[in-house]
Amino acid sequence: MARIFGHIEGQRVGSAYGNRRALHDAGVHAPLQAGISGTGKDGADSIVVSGGYVDDKDYGETIVYTGHGGRDPDTGRQVRDQELSDPGNAGLVRSELEGLPVRVVRGRNSDSPYAPASGLRYDGLYRVESHGAKVGIDGFRIWQFTLVKLPDEASTTATPPPLQSTIDMVTNTPGPAPVIETVVQRIVRNSKVVQQVKAWYDHECQICGLAVEVAGGRYSEGAHIQAIGSPHRGPDIVENVLCLCPNDHVRFDNGAIYLSDDLKVIEARTGQVKGTLIVNRSHRINPQYVANHRARWTTGTARG
Amino acid sequence: MARIFGHIEGQRVGSAYGNRRALHDAGVHAPLQAGISGTGKDGADSIVVSGGYVDDKDYGETIVYTGHGGRDPDTGRQVRDQELSDPGNAGLVRSELEGLPVRVVRGRNSDSPYAPASGLRYDGLYRVESHGAKVGIDGFRIWQFTLVKLPDEASTTATPPPLQSTIDMVTNTPGPAPVIETVVQRIVRNSKVVQQVKAWYDHECQICGLAVEVAGGRYSEGAHIQAIGSPHRGPDIVENVLCLCPNDHVRFDNGAIYLSDDLKVIEARTGQVKGTLIVNRSHRINPQYVANHRARWTTGTARG
Repeated sequence: MARIFGHIEGQRVGSAYGNRRALHDAGVHAPLQAGISGTGKDGADSIVVSGGYVDDKDYGETIVYTGHGGRDPDTGRQVRDQELSDPGNAGLVRSELEGLPVRVVRGRNSDSPYAPASGLRYDGLYRVESHGAKVGIDGFRIWQFTLVKLPDEASTTATPPPLQSTIDMVTNTPGPAPVIETVVQRIVRNSKVVQQVKAWYDHECQICGLAVEVAGGRYSEGAHIQAIGSPHRGPDIVENVLCLCPNDHVRFDNGAIYLSDDLKVIEARTGQVKGTLIVNRSHRINPQYVANHRARWTTGTARG
Repeated sequence: MARIFGHIEGQRVGSAYGNRRALHDAGVHAPLQAGISGTGKDGADSIVVSGGYVDDKDYGETIVYTGHGGRDPDTGRQVRDQELSDPGNAGLVRSELEGLPVRVVRGRNSDSPYAPASGLRYDGLYRVESHGAKVGIDGFRIWQFTLVKLPDEASTTATPPPLQSTIDMVTNTPGPAPVIETVVQRIVRNSKVVQQVKAWYDHECQICGLAVEVAGGRYSEGAHIQAIGSPHRGPDIVENVLCLCPNDHVRFDNGAIYLSDDLKVIEARTGQVKGTLIVNRSHRINPQYVANHRARWTTGTARG
């Protein structure tokens, strides 16, 4: 059966289900046990937020969701590191990379004001905003995904939004169920601060030295070292911004590349030094932000 | 004097000016003659839409604005090709690449329902959505820029929009005038069609063969050959989509690279063949869209 991204026909936001079997039968969340429905190839189409992970945080519109793996099935505590290669975790990464919507189901959880009093409830579509590693309460590495709610109105009507909107909803006309999906995935922000940093390097990438040449100019992107979104909350100041080519920006923001304290460029997969960051003498980079970025991608590993 | 991007303090949207000198004195548009205020280094901060170019089109919220150069000063007709290296034109390219807002001033023009009856009027902030070349009414190459209006409410209040919004407005606190600027510049769209194309190539770039590897997966972008936005109106179908790395996507969308009918990859700056497009046997690319993209970047040159 094809994985459906978006709403399931006939299942409204707020619908209640007595148990995981009923949720499965409705097509809202296929697995009977796993919290994440998905694979690295397809993406993740749904999750269940059930309070099973002590490091989860539910703020309603924003959910910090702990990935799969490493738990003792009897006690529910972490007993080893989580791996991003776990299919559910890789599925959430894929949904983030492709901008795919994730159905969120909340289960009973007396600790959360957003959880239903009993059973399970379909709470609509979220997008995966970011992810990163940290050492969880039990002392092992966990991967956490920040999910942000998509507007409910967009999910019931398929009206195209104005050009300025990040989220386009489209109806997948062939096939039986009207599937609505997000179609936007990557936004590059600019600011006075970013422009200052780009000017220092004349758009040459601080990692690879390349300037992407286009008709009429050069193109580069400002990359925040400590991410500016929640929960990272890095500042938009020159000490926290790099001038990167789009490819290295994607690599840096997704943990394929991180920096050592002496600004060596390290490939995460191998742990090898690939070179030294190019730094203009006017550009002071704050090591605190470098350490924050590195910890996000290396915590709990020997390279941390 | 520093170039100000965004509103000028005390100059409201809809303000009227008797002549170009008054407009200059108000700080809304500095040049007394040129229609574009800007350079390739800084970007363009303002334009005057005056009906001086026969190929201009004013739809109110959207303006197709002809670049600078190549006109006979006496007759106003094009007498030679326009160049993107002209400072005003390069300024509009820079504003597009950086997402900088452009102040739009309309002058009297009896052919346009959006023009004031007399004098000049400040009509608020626009973003440069795209640009491309075509042969103008007078038979010479012109460069045209599509500008789209930014919401006026965003320009009077500096309230941060929701995360889904493309346009963030920020107040530039240091300095005398509260300058509001757009801070978002590049959006990468996704769709079922794009996902199909990416799957054929497993995220390997059809131009350079590279797959950007990140923790947990690979990343690529779907590039529409004939652009989908107005006025290009290319379709979102696999015959019109390429799987590209972010760097080549920027190059392709900005005319640094185009394709020949036999799918050779051509570098626009030199006209040299850089290689052959990688094409999966399931992926039929429609030459009509390839020709449309090529014409947008080569019209009026020997390489067209």
